[in-house]
Amino acid sequence: VANIYIGDNLPLPEKALIAGIRLRSRGKGRGIALGIGDDCAVLQVPANRQVLVTTDFSLEGIHFRREWHPADSVGHRCLARGLSDIAAMGGEPLAAFLSLALPRKLSQRWADQFLSGLLTLANEFHVPLAGGDIAESLQGVLADIVVVGSVPRGRAILRSSARPGDRIYVTGQLGGSAYAVSLLLSGKRRRLDPRDYRSHFYPQPRIAVGRVLGEHKLASAMIDISDGLSTDLLHICEESGVGAEILADAIPRAQVGPTLQEVDLQTALHGGEAYELLFCARPEKTVPGQIDGVTVSEIGRMTRGSGMVLRDRKGAKRKLRAQGWEHFRS
Amino acid sequence: VANIYIGDNLPLPEKALIAGIRLRSRGKGRGIALGIGDDCAVLQVPANRQVLVTTDFSLEGIHFRREWHPADSVGHRCLARGLSDIAAMGGEPLAAFLSLALPRKLSQRWADQFLSGLLTLANEFHVPLAGGDIAESLQGVLADIVVVGSVPRGRAILRSSARPGDRIYVTGQLGGSAYAVSLLLSGKRRRLDPRDYRSHFYPQPRIAVGRVLGEHKLASAMIDISDGLSTDLLHICEESGVGAEILADAIPRAQVGPTLQEVDLQTALHGGEAYELLFCARPEKTVPGQIDGVTVSEIGRMTRGSGMVLRDRKGAKRKLRAQGWEHFRS
Repeated sequence: VANIYIGDNLPLPEKALIAGIRLRSRGKGRGIALGIGDDCAVLQVPANRQVLVTTDFSLEGIHFRREWHPADSVGHRCLARGLSDIAAMGGEPLAAFLSLALPRKLSQRWADQFLSGLLTLANEFHVPLAGGDIAESLQGVLADIVVVGSVPRGRAILRSSARPGDRIYVTGQLGGSAYAVSLLLSGKRRRLDPRDYRSHFYPQPRIAVGRVLGEHKLASAMIDISDGLSTDLLHICEESGVGAEILADAIPRAQVGPTLQEVDLQTALHGGEAYELLFCARPEKTVPGQIDGVTVSEIGRMTRGSGMVLRDRKGAKRKLRAQGWEHFRS
Repeated sequence: VANIYIGDNLPLPEKALIAGIRLRSRGKGRGIALGIGDDCAVLQVPANRQVLVTTDFSLEGIHFRREWHPADSVGHRCLARGLSDIAAMGGEPLAAFLSLALPRKLSQRWADQFLSGLLTLANEFHVPLAGGDIAESLQGVLADIVVVGSVPRGRAILRSSARPGDRIYVTGQLGGSAYAVSLLLSGKRRRLDPRDYRSHFYPQPRIAVGRVLGEHKLASAMIDISDGLSTDLLHICEESGVGAEILADAIPRAQVGPTLQEVDLQTALHGGEAYELLFCARPEKTVPGQIDGVTVSEIGRMTRGSGMVLRDRKGAKRKLRAQGWEHFRS
């Protein structure tokens, strides 16, 4: 079972893959007492810190399609999902674990490039790949990423601690990833150039921003925008027992594609996989307009009650419904 | 992304499943500062302990078949795989995380019973289910279990620390699970009564034995037998840079089925998924014949060099090859 090891009953491409992972991942990372090659990895968590754990599937046909996503983008996005959850707690990543099941006929090249995309992002954030599991898949590439992180004791930024009157903020721009998805799903474009749609193919987890917000005690509640602003805001509202009012004009809309087309309001409001941070702050806090080079926009405030409201520039209000976005299922 | 939450874009059976998990898992466990319902779980690891992490796939068609395995057995085995890895380090489990992808047409009853099997074992070992991920699967039930545990600092029992002259031990009896698999794969039996083959359908992770071995510093190296004795012994040999000599007659063979049939030597030597512990001890250590009610058998000793040897009762030696076992792939 277990941690990645060179199993003798594995077919050759998988053995090569594991050997490659092991070679490229051994001995890195401060918090890793023992990495790949035993029943478990052993992590050394700094004193006075708590441990964060998150797991996220990346399943072919659900979260990505091989005809649309280059292998290195699939690997990048796989890890970015987990890192973004660590960011949303104000935490720091310690180590990643990858469970990966590959179909027999998959090319070694695809597997190598998947791993390359994942490990490039891992190196960027100094997160060693410390273990996982390898298996055969009967259909499609199946990946599950686990990221273990840490946060100073009692300082994790939760979804449940927003209060009426808190201001609401988002990092970066919204809707860029969902716009790319809508182009692909509509059939208008068979392929996209990943360089024109980086927010979809290579999203940047906001680890540094989350850490700054935690260190300076700026955020009262936080979540990452994976299901879309409206849905993730509802999660904060439900967990905190409050409502929210959003200013339509304040929502930062992404400009994407070769012509830097600005996405429409609906895409920015409901589009998923932005991997930006959505957070609240008490009204007396001064939140900078930029943190670690990332724009921070105030978009509304938390209210009493439980409803979400969208206000336009003339002051007219309408109910804001959480509208989750579609995955890649055909 | 992330931790399990009630996503608004999930189909109803999945929402019900998550609500059920959350209801049955909330607020349990000493080490859980924050369980299901946020971007990450937050764990409190006792001071002077290191963190153990292991991940294991349970994929339909590879690790189990729905026509052979009752849903509660699939759930039990899924978690047992992870717990067994924690046991193999001499550790204690702290929390489990489940990534679960279900096909649309799966019955709610199957999902409920899967969860029941998993949570029954979790409760037995006081391991709260603290998070995970839920997704749709395009084919088959896909589960990935993560178990996080802890061990006193520097006291994890590794695969790499065996020395020539160490005695080799195994817990329990071997081959019972593999025998059940061989009956099913051969087509001789379309179904087995799980009560007659408990070592296959409901294996017991040896957490208490592993902890005792660690506390009393009895084991110099350890692994759990998931790939079969010969393969897992090879892992210890390779990681420790030593060889091994096993006494054929000393291998404890399981008695399984309604007639308590004793399995043959080959099945005990090479059969996988025993989830017993294989460990080494320095020759001066006194290892009890039973720990926590589980038989402990001495089966050989580690040697210089790198080969594995099997010795019969007449003293004749032959080379022992690692022969991994088959999964359920058709």
